[in-house]
Amino acid sequence: MYKNLYIALLHYPVYNKRGDVVTTAVTNLDIHDISRAARTYGVKGFYIITPIEQQQAFVERILHHWQKGYGVTYNPSRKQAFDIVRLESTLEDTILAISKETGDRVNVVFTSAASHKKHLTCEDLKEKMSENKDPFLIVFGTGWGIAEEAIEKADFFVEPIRGNSDYNHLSVRSAAAITLDRLCGQ
Amino acid sequence: MYKNLYIALLHYPVYNKRGDVVTTAVTNLDIHDISRAARTYGVKGFYIITPIEQQQAFVERILHHWQKGYGVTYNPSRKQAFDIVRLESTLEDTILAISKETGDRVNVVFTSAASHKKHLTCEDLKEKMSENKDPFLIVFGTGWGIAEEAIEKADFFVEPIRGNSDYNHLSVRSAAAITLDRLCGQ
Repeated sequence: MYKNLYIALLHYPVYNKRGDVVTTAVTNLDIHDISRAARTYGVKGFYIITPIEQQQAFVERILHHWQKGYGVTYNPSRKQAFDIVRLESTLEDTILAISKETGDRVNVVFTSAASHKKHLTCEDLKEKMSENKDPFLIVFGTGWGIAEEAIEKADFFVEPIRGNSDYNHLSVRSAAAITLDRLCGQ
Repeated sequence: MYKNLYIALLHYPVYNKRGDVVTTAVTNLDIHDISRAARTYGVKGFYIITPIEQQQAFVERILHHWQKGYGVTYNPSRKQAFDIVRLESTLEDTILAISKETGDRVNVVFTSAASHKKHLTCEDLKEKMSENKDPFLIVFGTGWGIAEEAIEKADFFVEPIRGNSDYNHLSVRSAAAITLDRLCGQ
């Protein structure tokens, strides 16, 4: 088990359908599904990244419900998943927060539905993680994917998830679950 | 690529939180996420199973929107995913429909978050599928899992998905995505 893994769901800067750089809205179910998968695979922190204050307030309301409100007694296992969820305004702030927490340089890995010329396979990345004690942050984009302007933040790119068909449109929830299983599954 | 794979999402008979046998409500996002994952991994048919007429009408309305309504032009890739979605009232009807379509006996595989004493690993199941030309139907439960009374329909049980922690509460959407990747991923 790799002990120093973080993931993030990026809501800005990402593309919309037309290729404009936008901030997407946070989706309640993304927080639920991805935190449960992250908790299952031993992820230390799952960052929701959005610069919009109203959206941050929305995330905080959801977190409060499941961490401290009625949700705690209604579904205690959901609390366990939500305990690893954190909120940041930007990818920079997220990297800084992890760096402060661990005292180490953060290896930032971008995921994408499209091939990047220098991408690692999941096997490559798994090996790199096992050789390296520094933290890794796997970043998942929302909307139509992480915008080019964020790319300088990436140390590595991981291969897109392909099934065995020509269809390449998984939800980010499914992509995150499969990526975690490939990297951390037994 | 295994050519004869079907999956089903069962809404009855399943358990609720207290262990009563109930019919769960169909969730819009289950249809979206699981159909996209199924289409990615070359699944031939994804069956939504519910005996409740109002719920069937709800599913038909969603399918119509993405297969024939505004959704077709709004998001053509969603249409491709929805093209493999089908609706049946019971697990028996689903097995019968697949048997009629293929002319063969259907191998029914139950998934569960709990261990079954005679379960196959995903590797075992993958091997069995590659040796066997008859169709396989992988059944995913909703709510708190498939009720005991349906168990006589199962030919095989597949291992629960474990990460690398003590936490065992994946969403059915994540569990379906990971199962398909383990069975059909490259």
